[in-house]
Amino acid sequence: MERIMDHLAHERSKAQFSVEEMKIIWAGSLHAFQVSDRIARLVASDPGFRKDNRAVLSRKELFKSALRKAAYVWKRINELALSEEEASWLRFYVDELAYAYIHWGMFVPAIKGSATEEQQQKWLPLANNMQIIGTYAQTELGHGSNVRGLETTATFDQETDEFIIHSPTLTSSKWWPGGLGKVATHAVVYARLITDGQDYGVHGFLVQIRSLDDHFPLPGVTVGDIGMKFGSGAFNSIDNGFLRFNHVRIPRNQMLMKVSRVTRQGKYVESNVPKQLLYGAMVYVRQIIVADASIALSRAVCIATRYSAVRRQFGPPHEDENGKGVETQVIDYKTQQSRLFPLLASAYAFRFVGEWLKWLYTDLIQKLEANDFSTLPEAHACTAGLKSLTTSAAADGIKECWKLCGGHGYLSSSGLPELYAAFVPACTYEGDNIVLLLQVSRFLMKTISQLQTGKKPIGTTAYMAHVEHLIQCRCTVQKAEDWLNPSVILEAFEARAIRLSVACAENLTKFATPLQGFSELSPDLVEAAVAHCQLIVVSKFIEKLQQNIEGNGVKQQLETLCNIYCLNLIHKHLGDFLSTGSISPKQASLASDQLRSRYSKLRSNVIALVDAFNYTDHFLGSVLGRYDGNVYPKLYEEAWKDPLNDSIVPDGYHEYIQPLLKQQLQNARL
Amino acid sequence: MERIMDHLAHERSKAQFSVEEMKIIWAGSLHAFQVSDRIARLVASDPGFRKDNRAVLSRKELFKSALRKAAYVWKRINELALSEEEASWLRFYVDELAYAYIHWGMFVPAIKGSATEEQQQKWLPLANNMQIIGTYAQTELGHGSNVRGLETTATFDQETDEFIIHSPTLTSSKWWPGGLGKVATHAVVYARLITDGQDYGVHGFLVQIRSLDDHFPLPGVTVGDIGMKFGSGAFNSIDNGFLRFNHVRIPRNQMLMKVSRVTRQGKYVESNVPKQLLYGAMVYVRQIIVADASIALSRAVCIATRYSAVRRQFGPPHEDENGKGVETQVIDYKTQQSRLFPLLASAYAFRFVGEWLKWLYTDLIQKLEANDFSTLPEAHACTAGLKSLTTSAAADGIKECWKLCGGHGYLSSSGLPELYAAFVPACTYEGDNIVLLLQVSRFLMKTISQLQTGKKPIGTTAYMAHVEHLIQCRCTVQKAEDWLNPSVILEAFEARAIRLSVACAENLTKFATPLQGFSELSPDLVEAAVAHCQLIVVSKFIEKLQQNIEGNGVKQQLETLCNIYCLNLIHKHLGDFLSTGSISPKQASLASDQLRSRYSKLRSNVIALVDAFNYTDHFLGSVLGRYDGNVYPKLYEEAWKDPLNDSIVPDGYHEYIQPLLKQQLQNARL
Repeated sequence: MERIMDHLAHERSKAQFSVEEMKIIWAGSLHAFQVSDRIARLVASDPGFRKDNRAVLSRKELFKSALRKAAYVWKRINELALSEEEASWLRFYVDELAYAYIHWGMFVPAIKGSATEEQQQKWLPLANNMQIIGTYAQTELGHGSNVRGLETTATFDQETDEFIIHSPTLTSSKWWPGGLGKVATHAVVYARLITDGQDYGVHGFLVQIRSLDDHFPLPGVTVGDIGMKFGSGAFNSIDNGFLRFNHVRIPRNQMLMKVSRVTRQGKYVESNVPKQLLYGAMVYVRQIIVADASIALSRAVCIATRYSAVRRQFGPPHEDENGKGVETQVIDYKTQQSRLFPLLASAYAFRFVGEWLKWLYTDLIQKLEANDFSTLPEAHACTAGLKSLTTSAAADGIKECWKLCGGHGYLSSSGLPELYAAFVPACTYEGDNIVLLLQVSRFLMKTISQLQTGKKPIGTTAYMAHVEHLIQCRCTVQKAEDWLNPSVILEAFEARAIRLSVACAENLTKFATPLQGFSELSPDLVEAAVAHCQLIVVSKFIEKLQQNIEGNGVKQQLETLCNIYCLNLIHKHLGDFLSTGSISPKQASLASDQLRSRYSKLRSNVIALVDAFNYTDHFLGSVLGRYDGNVYPKLYEEAWKDPLNDSIVPDGYHEYIQPLLKQQLQNARL
Repeated sequence: MERIMDHLAHERSKAQFSVEEMKIIWAGSLHAFQVSDRIARLVASDPGFRKDNRAVLSRKELFKSALRKAAYVWKRINELALSEEEASWLRFYVDELAYAYIHWGMFVPAIKGSATEEQQQKWLPLANNMQIIGTYAQTELGHGSNVRGLETTATFDQETDEFIIHSPTLTSSKWWPGGLGKVATHAVVYARLITDGQDYGVHGFLVQIRSLDDHFPLPGVTVGDIGMKFGSGAFNSIDNGFLRFNHVRIPRNQMLMKVSRVTRQGKYVESNVPKQLLYGAMVYVRQIIVADASIALSRAVCIATRYSAVRRQFGPPHEDENGKGVETQVIDYKTQQSRLFPLLASAYAFRFVGEWLKWLYTDLIQKLEANDFSTLPEAHACTAGLKSLTTSAAADGIKECWKLCGGHGYLSSSGLPELYAAFVPACTYEGDNIVLLLQVSRFLMKTISQLQTGKKPIGTTAYMAHVEHLIQCRCTVQKAEDWLNPSVILEAFEARAIRLSVACAENLTKFATPLQGFSELSPDLVEAAVAHCQLIVVSKFIEKLQQNIEGNGVKQQLETLCNIYCLNLIHKHLGDFLSTGSISPKQASLASDQLRSRYSKLRSNVIALVDAFNYTDHFLGSVLGRYDGNVYPKLYEEAWKDPLNDSIVPDGYHEYIQPLLKQQLQNARL
């Protein structure tokens, strides 16, 4: 019998700051902390939201269980009369991908963003009550990133006042939309609008795809699930689907007509609503993804940090409280710290840049609604870049956390495999990360070329106004402590970013055409974009620290995390900093020394720093990351639950093992 | 109806070398090519070896199917009277993890390596006929990398002439051995040998764990499966297990006694067989893993390369043979090339270093048997380092290939998720990759300290003899073409490696104790070890090119791949090269230019270069990587096979979807 105890109590007692105050910083506000905490506990204590059995379920069982949970979520939301904020926290903590995610996250916003007031009055109540379930059908089998290449057509038939939705080729099949395969009754379908023989490009249409009576696909609609995806559990609980149309007719007024419409006579007319508003939706989705990245990474970091404090291996003999010799805690190895602590710092860094992006989005929408489009390109580039940067870093970071847990991280019960499998698609959806960085780099090149015309760069590119200084400035670091000065850090990152961009801009002029130059130099352009985006994260972290931060020792911990985040980036991208002359080799070596000393400073606080995420054991879903650190007995307990352990002698023994051992295979039917 | 055609024929016609000759180079010899080719086709054409349904099987179904296949493999091996070489190719191409992998790869070699002649005569025939099935039980729940920390005990009882095998704690439970959970009848168990009250450390014992009559665990044995692991399919087809002993007695002569034994009187006696021979087994297993890494990476590269040539997206309008406008092939984007082509180069690089390691192992064993242990430490460090380097790079490379396939790479039918999930544990098993690199760095530090004593470094450390030259030499590159000179490349890598090592050695002296120094500087030591191991791969690739290589254009392609491998490493680790002054920023920029030009040179050959791996569509198991490039119709076909598509209306509709849509959830039981 194991004692019930907190195996990490000793670690917690070492913290040099107020965890409770840090929880509020992490949550963003006292209110956000209180609401999320209440809902998290509600979910964790309800057996209806159990999720520890997902990995062993077959596809059908998993899917059915997700259907049950989605219905149960909706039932509880209504029973408890939850506010919109509370409902969204509930869905978040239930942590199981299902059609509702797309319905609320993509379908409803698409109607709000692209439908006219009249259309919204018709469709939104139905969607808000879930009397219809919607999905968002854009991507096609042959067309992902290049939306302009979509092949599905919506041809206006003036005779009947209808659009004919059609999939002319196999590659035009809609492919990937979540909730489409088996559930959605309606879809916002993106198709080329053709009227009067002319192709007006891709527009959105609201199309019913299944009967509300018997759930059968409507005539002309072929729809199904696209098959298993990476991992057990993860995205397999949701029915990503394919969808093909064979001349399916919809009324003209199911074109989403906020920005442009087709008249009864088949004339294409643009409304006076600015198209730019549609970009706002893109900014919205991407800032959500940045927030998701910090959550996914912080979950993995929480698991790896706690387990690294529990796990012991090698090392000079220590003695525990009973005088028994024990091995060294894995977290005390510098190799472990140098991989794990920067990820902990990144989780906080991404959290704060996500918080700022949320503000940016609100600010942008206000401007757009006031017909001020001046900040849109910068906001768009910045959001695209941060989506790319944070999702790539989080995916790599989750994988690293998993390696940091050694072999046991590979067990489903560690929670890490599913966390990884469920997060990694974020690197591709809503814009492939490399494609997005190329967009950022194009914006940077444009900004640089406009410097000469005297146009002042704004927002996250404001530093580019100081190009002359940044091109020739020299880093002033002379001793390791100098690296703790935020303005020194900032200037090094600014110098690196602008020097890489300027070098690209200069090299581009050497090619016959800009197109050829962009093509040949694209790998360099991507690196310049990364440098720019890392600068944004660094500067927003530093700005956060300039705010009034309360709580005993809280600010000091955040400063240490910020130092680690920045200095580790310098170490990782040292080639950039040295080749651009932004810092010297000697200064790089001092940065490494300072980084090492920051790890030691952080060490006694790391368990408390992951506690501050305030994740319940239910939400974490990890035996290795348990709050109480009671890892080994629980791993053993989990193992027994595998279906293979249902019987002592496995199914298949009599047919396949016994005849082999008895050398009687020659007559066996196999 | 799609035409049956080779969608990649145009790509294949562009190749500037003999694919057939390259296949032989890849296979290692004409003989190896012929045998493997014959067996690959045999497996691919036998429906009994079908593997395309793995992802959708439940744990029990998957396990049972693996049992069937393992029996079928054994039956076919006997029916066809396959040679040992052919049998091992057959198991390789069947490509499904099962107990036989551990039986043949770990259990049988352990007996051969650690049992006396007499013991071998008793046990080997049983194992060779599979009348017993064995596993290798070393790792424990609480103890992985640190073998000396194992807790299981084997206490000699002189009265009965038996060892008592016991698991004194929960953490001493054996944990992870493959085939243990539900299948193995016997295990080589590593336990602390205790006799006469003294602990002689960890030794191997042969223990029967299940009855050969009814397969039930023997008295005192608790055994089961440790549960689901990462991915669907992948390692879930094998029963990694746990094992606990409650005072289980085995005869004294089941201790593996080649190197040491316990007498009837309980006296511990070392034999005259040198202990070093046991290290030979470690070298053996690790060189196999290096070979596995090149195979796993090349599979992923083959899939991503073919799909990148099929997939089109964006770009200036091209015209196909019918004059129809088409998008640009993804493989023509420089961002795609700069990520994919270095991986293709790495696959070849790892193949050749693996080939060399195989030779090294044979050479080592001959020396050990002649009582020459002088090369063992170097061979050991080199194998450990290359295991770490190649498995980490292959795991990252597979993930990158998967991202290079965009969203569709995430589908199980792409083959990439399972390839990744099945390979990534190689970063942890047989030595955690970071722990191994620390071992390498310790060896490097020792080598450096011995330079002063005049001891001549051997083998892969021979370059260290030129430390004085390498510390002060300057890279001579003045124009991009200079980077094509192998001796220039080699010297840059040697300079970088030795300068990092020497810097570590110097910094170590600044600490109070070597132990403290090693601990504090371990992240730097790891980087020095990586630099050393990369140098080994680079130098073996260059050595390979100095051999007589036949075949039209073959050598030229390998030279281009070698250039890409080396120049990409310089780009990736630029911080190292610049901070050590091994090259200048200007030279780095020339290396980038040369790298870009090598990509263009390689472009028309890449499909043929992955064809040279000679993988069947069965072995690849990927719709995206199909030889004929007929990707889209087959993706659609695969999608229909998902269990969710068995019925039009999904199971769960009536309980969970209909009542929700009808707003009748309040009374539903969920």
